[in-house]
Amino acid sequence: MKPIRLGMVGGGQGAFIGEVHRFASRLDGQYQLVAGALSSSPEKAAASGAALGLDPARSYTSWAEMAKAEAARDEGIEAVAIVTPNHVHAGPAMAFLEAGIHVICDKPLTATMAQAEALEQVVRRSTALFFLTHNYTGYPMVRQARQLVEDGALGKLRLVQVEYVQDWLTDPVEQAGDNKQAEWRTDPERSGAGGSTGDIGTHAHNLACFVSGLTVSKLAADLDAFVPGRALDDNAHVLMRFEGGAKGMLWCSQVAPGNENGLKLRIFGDKGGLEWAQEDPNRLWFTPHGEPKRLITRNGAGSGPGSQAVSRIPAGHPEGYLEGFANIYTGAAEAIRAHQAGQPLPEGAALLPGIDAGMAGMRFVAACVESSKRDAAWVTP
Amino acid sequence: MKPIRLGMVGGGQGAFIGEVHRFASRLDGQYQLVAGALSSSPEKAAASGAALGLDPARSYTSWAEMAKAEAARDEGIEAVAIVTPNHVHAGPAMAFLEAGIHVICDKPLTATMAQAEALEQVVRRSTALFFLTHNYTGYPMVRQARQLVEDGALGKLRLVQVEYVQDWLTDPVEQAGDNKQAEWRTDPERSGAGGSTGDIGTHAHNLACFVSGLTVSKLAADLDAFVPGRALDDNAHVLMRFEGGAKGMLWCSQVAPGNENGLKLRIFGDKGGLEWAQEDPNRLWFTPHGEPKRLITRNGAGSGPGSQAVSRIPAGHPEGYLEGFANIYTGAAEAIRAHQAGQPLPEGAALLPGIDAGMAGMRFVAACVESSKRDAAWVTP
Amino acid sequence: MKPIRLGMVGGGQGAFIGEVHRFASRLDGQYQLVAGALSSSPEKAAASGAALGLDPARSYTSWAEMAKAEAARDEGIEAVAIVTPNHVHAGPAMAFLEAGIHVICDKPLTATMAQAEALEQVVRRSTALFFLTHNYTGYPMVRQARQLVEDGALGKLRLVQVEYVQDWLTDPVEQAGDNKQAEWRTDPERSGAGGSTGDIGTHAHNLACFVSGLTVSKLAADLDAFVPGRALDDNAHVLMRFEGGAKGMLWCSQVAPGNENGLKLRIFGDKGGLEWAQEDPNRLWFTPHGEPKRLITRNGAGSGPGSQAVSRIPAGHPEGYLEGFANIYTGAAEAIRAHQAGQPLPEGAALLPGIDAGMAGMRFVAACVESSKRDAAWVTP
Amino acid sequence: MKPIRLGMVGGGQGAFIGEVHRFASRLDGQYQLVAGALSSSPEKAAASGAALGLDPARSYTSWAEMAKAEAARDEGIEAVAIVTPNHVHAGPAMAFLEAGIHVICDKPLTATMAQAEALEQVVRRSTALFFLTHNYTGYPMVRQARQLVEDGALGKLRLVQVEYVQDWLTDPVEQAGDNKQAEWRTDPERSGAGGSTGDIGTHAHNLACFVSGLTVSKLAADLDAFVPGRALDDNAHVLMRFEGGAKGMLWCSQVAPGNENGLKLRIFGDKGGLEWAQEDPNRLWFTPHGEPKRLITRNGAGSGPGSQAVSRIPAGHPEGYLEGFANIYTGAAEAIRAHQAGQPLPEGAALLPGIDAGMAGMRFVAACVESSKRDAAWVTP
Repeated sequence: MKPIRLGMVGGGQGAFIGEVHRFASRLDGQYQLVAGALSSSPEKAAASGAALGLDPARSYTSWAEMAKAEAARDEGIEAVAIVTPNHVHAGPAMAFLEAGIHVICDKPLTATMAQAEALEQVVRRSTALFFLTHNYTGYPMVRQARQLVEDGALGKLRLVQVEYVQDWLTDPVEQAGDNKQAEWRTDPERSGAGGSTGDIGTHAHNLACFVSGLTVSKLAADLDAFVPGRALDDNAHVLMRFEGGAKGMLWCSQVAPGNENGLKLRIFGDKGGLEWAQEDPNRLWFTPHGEPKRLITRNGAGSGPGSQAVSRIPAGHPEGYLEGFANIYTGAAEAIRAHQAGQPLPEGAALLPGIDAGMAGMRFVAACVESSKRDAAWVTP
Repeated sequence: MKPIRLGMVGGGQGAFIGEVHRFASRLDGQYQLVAGALSSSPEKAAASGAALGLDPARSYTSWAEMAKAEAARDEGIEAVAIVTPNHVHAGPAMAFLEAGIHVICDKPLTATMAQAEALEQVVRRSTALFFLTHNYTGYPMVRQARQLVEDGALGKLRLVQVEYVQDWLTDPVEQAGDNKQAEWRTDPERSGAGGSTGDIGTHAHNLACFVSGLTVSKLAADLDAFVPGRALDDNAHVLMRFEGGAKGMLWCSQVAPGNENGLKLRIFGDKGGLEWAQEDPNRLWFTPHGEPKRLITRNGAGSGPGSQAVSRIPAGHPEGYLEGFANIYTGAAEAIRAHQAGQPLPEGAALLPGIDAGMAGMRFVAACVESSKRDAAWVTP
Repeated sequence: MKPIRLGMVGGGQGAFIGEVHRFASRLDGQYQLVAGALSSSPEKAAASGAALGLDPARSYTSWAEMAKAEAARDEGIEAVAIVTPNHVHAGPAMAFLEAGIHVICDKPLTATMAQAEALEQVVRRSTALFFLTHNYTGYPMVRQARQLVEDGALGKLRLVQVEYVQDWLTDPVEQAGDNKQAEWRTDPERSGAGGSTGDIGTHAHNLACFVSGLTVSKLAADLDAFVPGRALDDNAHVLMRFEGGAKGMLWCSQVAPGNENGLKLRIFGDKGGLEWAQEDPNRLWFTPHGEPKRLITRNGAGSGPGSQAVSRIPAGHPEGYLEGFANIYTGAAEAIRAHQAGQPLPEGAALLPGIDAGMAGMRFVAACVESSKRDAAWVTP
Repeated sequence: MKPIRLGMVGGGQGAFIGEVHRFASRLDGQYQLVAGALSSSPEKAAASGAALGLDPARSYTSWAEMAKAEAARDEGIEAVAIVTPNHVHAGPAMAFLEAGIHVICDKPLTATMAQAEALEQVVRRSTALFFLTHNYTGYPMVRQARQLVEDGALGKLRLVQVEYVQDWLTDPVEQAGDNKQAEWRTDPERSGAGGSTGDIGTHAHNLACFVSGLTVSKLAADLDAFVPGRALDDNAHVLMRFEGGAKGMLWCSQVAPGNENGLKLRIFGDKGGLEWAQEDPNRLWFTPHGEPKRLITRNGAGSGPGSQAVSRIPAGHPEGYLEGFANIYTGAAEAIRAHQAGQPLPEGAALLPGIDAGMAGMRFVAACVESSKRDAAWVTP
C-alpha cells in the first residue's frame, strides 16, 4: 500500500508537538512527509525541511502558498498536519480543507470561539476530512474502557473523575526568555482564553466524555494563575454535571510539583468502577462491584477486540504515547483511503476525534473562563 | 506505670468502631477498660461486658448512671471513650466532662450543630480534657507530612487536594434490614445533616487542614444521594478556598466501586509537593520541585523525629490503622497523666484533635449542606 | 475472659523483638505480662521491669530462678515469651516447659543443632505447649494464600520463589560499638552458624513451606559475607527442589540498599499464580491462568473465612506487622485455653508454627552452610 | 538525510518479531524497507511483500539469492534485518556480511555453537557491521542505570539479580497445531539447546551484564521442562558468580501464570542500589544507601545525558518497547552512516550489542545446559 502524501504546517526545529506528529505518522508506514510550511522564517523553514529530507521546492514559508501550490501539483499532498500554536489553526485548516486536502489538526481547535465557528462551518461543508489530535483516545486501554462502559459493565454511571496534572509551569519559566513552549502557551494572543484549561483541560474533558459517552450539561469552575504575572490560568478546579444525572470533578494543573503528565480517569456506576492513568497506559483497572479488582492489560487477558485492534505487540511489551498518537494517525489514514475510494468510512472512524470534539473543547474552555469570572457560577458549555 | 482506668459508652457486640477504640487503648498498655455502658439493652450490655471481662457491677445500661456511679467511686474511671452513633455523643460527653472524667469521643463531634455548641461550651469550661478521634492524624507519615509543610519544604502552599472514597454504600444496603452500620449512618436522626460528608468528609477535611495548617475560608459543594431512597448524601464534590490563597478540592464518596477506604491527600506549593494515601500509610512521597520524587518511609531514611516519636517498629515492618489510632489514645494518655500531675500538657498534645477540630468539622458539614441546597453557592464554614 | 499470665525472658530496654512480643500479647487483650527475666543485669532488669509495671518481686535476673519461682507460685505465669538472642533459647525453653509453663519462643529455634535437638526432645515429651514466632504466617493474606494453594486454585505447583531482602547490614555496623542488634546477629556464638540465613532466611523458608505446603528435599546454597570482617553470611542464594517436583529459589540479604524488610513470595502452578509482599501485606495478587490478575484484599472481596478469622477491621483499614504477630499470640492463647480446659486444640492451632517448623528451619540453615562450604553442592536439609 | 535502504529476511505475515523490526526501523525515519526474503513459500513471500509495498522484483524467496542480487544492484540494500528462527540466523548473516551488507540480526545469535563460531569468524573479518537486537539495552532508563553504575553511584557491586518471567507456555500450546511461535521456540532443531534460556534468559543475562559492566565467571543452573512432552527448558534457576566478586541469581520462566513479559533487574553495591522493570520502563529506582529511594524518570528530574539522548518526548509521556527497540536501529543507522562516510563510529555505537554480546549469550545458554545436565555443577560460560 502506498503511503499517503503528507504535508505539515509548523513543527520546525525546536518544536515539540510537530515531532510527535511526525513520529506518529511514520510508525505504521501509512504516511510519507513530502511538504511543509515548517516555519515562517525562511532560514528555519529551509533548515528544518532539509533535516527532514524534504524537496526544497516543497518547503514553504507560508501555509497559504503551500495550500495553493500543493493543490495544484500532480501528486501533491493528500493530507496536512497542523501543529502550530492555537491561533494558527483555523487559517491553515480552512485553506487546506477548501483546497480539498484532508486536515489533521492539533488541539485545541483554535484560539478563539470566533475562529472555531468559522472553521466549523468550513469543516461541515467540506468534502475533505478533518481530524483533531485528542490523542489520548488512541490508547488501547482507553478504547477498552469506553467499551466496558458501552457494554454496561459499570451499570448506570454516577461519577466521572478526571485530572490532568503537570508541574512544568510551577515557576515563571515563560518569563525567562528561553522557553518558547511556555511563552506561547501562557500568551492569550496565541493560546486563547484558557491556559491550563485549553492546553490540558480540553484533553481531560475530551477523555472523560469519550470514555463515559456522556456530555457535560453544566459546569462550575474556579480558575487560578498561581504564578505572579501569568496571564492565563495555570490551575483549574471544575465541578461537572452530566446529562443523565452523573456528576464529576475535573482538575487540571501545571503547577503541581511531582507530576509530569498525570492524566487520570476514574468512572463509577452502580455496577462497577474503572480507573486508567496515562503514565501507566497499558493497564486498566476494572472492579465489578463486590468482586476483586481486575487488572486488564493491553492485548492481555480480559482485553477485547476494540483495544486489540489498535495494539501492535503482545501484552507485557509496553506501548506508549507515540503508539497511542499513531493510532489516531493510522485511523485517519484508513478513513482517508476509504474516502478516496468512495467507500463509507470504516467503523473505527467514528472513534476519531474531529470537529465535534473540537467544538466541545472550545465550549468547555469558554464555560470554564466564564464560570470562573462569575465566581464559579454554573454555566452550560 | 499504671494504666489509666477507662470506661466506654457504646461499642457493644457487633459494633465496629467500639472495638477499634478498644484495640487502640490496649496496644501500648496505657489504658485498662474497667467499666462500660456498652448498650442500652440490658441483655446486650451484660453479654458485651462479660465478653470483655468487666465487673458486672460496672457494666451499666445508662451512660448517665455510669457517669454518676463512676465519679462517685473510689478508683472510678479516669477517662471514657464515647463510641455511639453521632446523636449520642453530646449527652454522654457533657455528662462525663462535668463529672471530671476525661473524654475521648468518636467523630464527628455530634449530630447537630445545636448539640455541638452545647458540648463546646461544656468542653471550654471543663477542667477535664476532651479528645476527638480524627485518628488519621495519628499516622506517623501524616505527622511527617505536616512537619514538611511547617518546615517550608513545599514553599508557599497553592493546592490542597483530598479525597476519601469508599464503595460500601453502592447498593441500598441500609434497606436490607441486616446492616446496622449502614442504617444509622444513612439516618438523619442519628447521623446528622451529613451522610458521606459527616462520616468521611470530616476526616478528609480534618486531614487536609491538619497537614496544610490552613483553614477553609469558603467552600462550594455539590452533594448527591445517588442511591434511590437514601436520605443523606453518599457523594460530595467540594471546591475549597483557603485563607492565604490556596485552593483545593475535596471528594468524598461511599458509592465508588473498587474503593475500600481510599483517603488520599496531595499538597503542592511553589517549592514542592507531597502525596500520602491511607491504604499505603507507611510511605510518603515528597518531590522538591525539579528533583526526583523521594520515598520517605516510616522510621526509614528521610523520616524525622516527629514521625519517629509515634512509630513503634523499624522501617519495612508495616504499622497500620490501629497503630495510628493508638497514637491518638497514647497521646491522650500522656496528656491525661500530665494533667493529673498538674503539669503542662506535653508538646505532642497540641497535635491531638479536640473541640476545635470537632467544631470545624461540624461547620464543614453544615456549609456543605447549605451550599449544596443553594446550588453550590460559596459558603463560609 | 481473664488474660493469660505471661512472663518474658529477655526484652529489656533497648531490645527490638521483646517489645514486639509485648505489643502482640497486648493487642487482643489475651495476655497480661506479670513477670520477667528481662535482663541478666540486675540494674537493667529492675529498670525494665519497673517501666513495664512489673511487681519487683517478679522481676528476675535469671530465667532459671524465674522458672522455679513462678512454677511454685500461686497464680504464677501460665506462659512465657522467650525473646533472647538465639543461644539463649534452648535453655529457658526447656526449663519452662519442664516446669509445665507454655513457651512462646522467638525464631530461629536455637543457635546450634545440638541445642535444637535437646529442645526438641523436651518439647516432644512435654505436656506444655511450644510455639515459635514465625510471625509472617500470621498475616491474613498469607493464610489466604495458603488456602488458595490448598484448594487447588493454582493447580499442581511448579515454582516457589521467595526472597527476604534488607539493607541494614550494608555497612559494618556491628563494628561501631553501638548497635547491639547487629552485634549479636553477626556473632556465631550468639546467632549460630547462619547470619542472614538464620535471621531472615528461616522466615523466608518457613513462609514458602507454609503457603505451598511443600517440603524442601534438596538445596544448593551460595553464601557470602560481603562486608569485610563479618563472620556470618549476610547474603545467600539458594536453589531449592521440593518433594513432588516443584523447584524454587530463595534469596536472603542484609546488604541490598533500598530494601527495608522485603519479604516476598511468589508461587506458580499449572493453573495459576500468586504473589504476596510483606511490606504491602493487606493485598494478595492471584492470577487464574489466562484470566486478568485479581487483587484480593484483607477482609475484602475475594477473601475467605480463614483470612477473615484473623482480621480485626474492615478492608481498606490496613493491618500490619504487629497485627500479624498478634495472630500468632492469640492463636497460642486459644490453644493454651483449650489445653487448660482439657479440650482438643482448636482447628486453627494446626496453623501455628512450633517445633516442627523450628527443626525445619535449623536443618535449612545447616544445609545452606554445608552446601556453601561444598561450593553449592546439593544437600538434603 | 536519505533513509538507509533495508532488506529483511523472515518476517512474513503472521510473524511477531519481523513486524517489531519494521516498526523500529520506521519510527525515526532512518530506514526504508525496499527488499525482502520474507518467506521461503513463494505465495507467502509475494503476499507479504505486496502488503509492505515492496517492488515484486525485490521480494525474494531465498536469502542467498537476495544477498547476491541486492549486492549486484545499483542502489541495492545497505543493511538487512534477519528475523528468522534461530537456526536461520548464521546462514543469511554470513551471506550478507560477505556481500558487504550490514546486518541487524535478532537474538540469540544462532541455534548452535558451531553456527555461532562460524558466524563470529565472518563478523570479525568483515568490513560490514553486525548488530544483534538485544533490544532491552535500548531503553533510556537502562542506559541511565548503566551510567549510574559506571559513575560509581552504587559503589563496589555486590549483587546482580535478574529475572525474565512469562506465562505464555504454561500449557502445552506448541502441541495444539496453531501456534507457530510456540512451535519453533520449543523445537531444539530450530531454537537450539536452550528453550527459555535461549529465548529470554539470554536477554536477562545480556541486560545484567550491560548495566553492571560485569562478566559471569561461573554459573550453576537448574533447568526444567515443566510441561510434559516439552523438549526444551521452560524454566531456569541460575546462580551466578561474576568476575570481581559480585554474585547473582537469574530466573527465567515461561510457565509462571500472571507474568506477561516480566524482565526485571536489581543491582546493589556497597553505596547504593537500583531497580528497573521492563513493564514500567520509564522509571528507574535509585537508592543511595541510607537516603530515601529516588524515582528517576525518562527525560525527567535526575535523568542524565545518556538516557536523554535516546529519549524522544518529554517526561510523563511514556515511551515503550518499540521506542527502545528503535534506539538500537537508530544507533545502528548512525554507525552505518559513519562507516559509509569513512569516519570513526560514533561514541554511542559502543553501547550497541553485537557479536561479543551474541557469543556471550551463546556461551551462557551452553553453560546453563551443561550445568543442568551435571546437576547444577559450576560451569564457566
